[in-house]
Amino acid sequence: MQSKPTENELVARIADAMRTSGVPSLALGIGDDAALWHPASGFETILTCDWFLEGSHFLRDRHPADSVGWKCLARAVSDIAAMGGRPRCFLLSLALPLNLPPHWLNEFLRGLRRASSAFGCALAGGDTTRRSEILIHLTIIGEVKKGKALRRSGARPGDLIYVSGRLGEAEAGLRDLRKRSGLAKPLTHELRKHLYPQPRLALGEWLSAHRVATSMMDLSDGLSSDLTRLCNASGVGAEIDAAILPVVKHLERREALQLALHGGDDYELLFAVPARRAMSLPRRIAGVPITQIGRITRERKIVLIGTNGSSTKLIPGGWDPFRS
Amino acid sequence: MQSKPTENELVARIADAMRTSGVPSLALGIGDDAALWHPASGFETILTCDWFLEGSHFLRDRHPADSVGWKCLARAVSDIAAMGGRPRCFLLSLALPLNLPPHWLNEFLRGLRRASSAFGCALAGGDTTRRSEILIHLTIIGEVKKGKALRRSGARPGDLIYVSGRLGEAEAGLRDLRKRSGLAKPLTHELRKHLYPQPRLALGEWLSAHRVATSMMDLSDGLSSDLTRLCNASGVGAEIDAAILPVVKHLERREALQLALHGGDDYELLFAVPARRAMSLPRRIAGVPITQIGRITRERKIVLIGTNGSSTKLIPGGWDPFRS
Repeated sequence: MQSKPTENELVARIADAMRTSGVPSLALGIGDDAALWHPASGFETILTCDWFLEGSHFLRDRHPADSVGWKCLARAVSDIAAMGGRPRCFLLSLALPLNLPPHWLNEFLRGLRRASSAFGCALAGGDTTRRSEILIHLTIIGEVKKGKALRRSGARPGDLIYVSGRLGEAEAGLRDLRKRSGLAKPLTHELRKHLYPQPRLALGEWLSAHRVATSMMDLSDGLSSDLTRLCNASGVGAEIDAAILPVVKHLERREALQLALHGGDDYELLFAVPARRAMSLPRRIAGVPITQIGRITRERKIVLIGTNGSSTKLIPGGWDPFRS
Repeated sequence: MQSKPTENELVARIADAMRTSGVPSLALGIGDDAALWHPASGFETILTCDWFLEGSHFLRDRHPADSVGWKCLARAVSDIAAMGGRPRCFLLSLALPLNLPPHWLNEFLRGLRRASSAFGCALAGGDTTRRSEILIHLTIIGEVKKGKALRRSGARPGDLIYVSGRLGEAEAGLRDLRKRSGLAKPLTHELRKHLYPQPRLALGEWLSAHRVATSMMDLSDGLSSDLTRLCNASGVGAEIDAAILPVVKHLERREALQLALHGGDDYELLFAVPARRAMSLPRRIAGVPITQIGRITRERKIVLIGTNGSSTKLIPGGWDPFRS
């Protein structure tokens, strides 16, 4: 990146940094008009994509470049986890400023490579251009056995609602980051969750393979917004018990509850399980704790049951780029 | 789009505008965490993606919104044509200003829908966010019979080099557009080619099915840049005859030659054919004229043979976002 590389040089540099040893299903990767990929027989292809834009999704002076690399792949891969699938390969589109320090791209690619290796998701191609701000776009190609994908639309009244992990941690991490002056060091647990989220791939695959869940999605915008989407897709409502929500540990209860209801970026899984199947569910699946937080109802609204037994309607208050 | 729609409303609006009747291979489209797609057995999947950014790739005050919709899909689909494949579905990622006039999005979706229908490529999903400028990103999923994809890397010394259509027309159209004060009306042939390019899908499929070409790519950045890429990938060089290049008709010869060599955005196909197969090639394939413009050489450089027989080295001078 010293003094204005050509587009060819930039592509070669990215391909070199992301070189992986043998992805058998990838017949042709970077450097042709398009990538060629061999889908496995008996599987469906899962397609998903995500923006990750400077100023909207990350701040260059706050977020370490390697966390930008890790997180852009992690959050896109989370949509594959949400279907119960396995990621296979991805397309990376980058728009970069001409004056971007070489260090930034190096660190970005280091984080991206670490994520690519952790999630078993190889770089297959992409597009590059220049722009005054850093624009990132990822497309993930995944696979799931035919008929085994978990959709948003299968929840039925009486199903119990579960989440993985603790909700609101990533938002707590972001608040912490905003208070600091420079790049984020040292890392608290919450900050790590904001910067280096872990898509729940093994949990998603387990739920799909065991045919336990009737519907599933990942929590990216916040429980209040995402649960509303799941309920709308299924034509149902839900009741959530504030008392049993797994919230951030060390915060005042009221604040922790707000973060758990409306905080974004957790990338935990939200899923519904028929009551008769719930008895047999372990407390941890693939190393991740799961918690029952409420139940699916026939009436199409989301109700929050307070610790004192009060019922209030839960209004979607999570992240919406077109509202905030 | 009247007064700040939510993200859910925007997604519903796009899905509604792009609704197509029955894409059997698309199991699950917009509205879930990801799309589900059934790859056909005996086929490979082709993956490609493209930026299309306001200010870089189009100007809001010069390019009609419906041409932005048409062109963003057409140019991305052109990479599928370049592999000899057939497009199947696409992911649309949009970042839109909050104050974007509803008319713009309507017209954009109209052009996109027309292209989607013309190319047989259905909307499968995407991502939306807001941004001060319009950012567009497309991912295309295509298919090609196993082993039939045409790559850049197969050209051999002695192969004859062909192009479809006339080169430099789109760049001539862009020059015309720049001279005008407002949105582009009425359309000349060249302006139409700049605004509404036609990816050469039928030609690409024909060449793949008849196993005629040893290598192929599409001309997006200009012949001098793209032929260099094809030659580099194949480890060969090339000689181009200026006298037989199909150039813009009504321009002065010298200017027309420069446009044909370095003008971008034509989305014609560039391909190499063994000399013994060239005799049997028709002059038009799938309605598109093809022209032999030179030959592949062993020596790894690109040489332009002038009309007076002179030889000059051809330096890549096409579009490169990291140089211009």
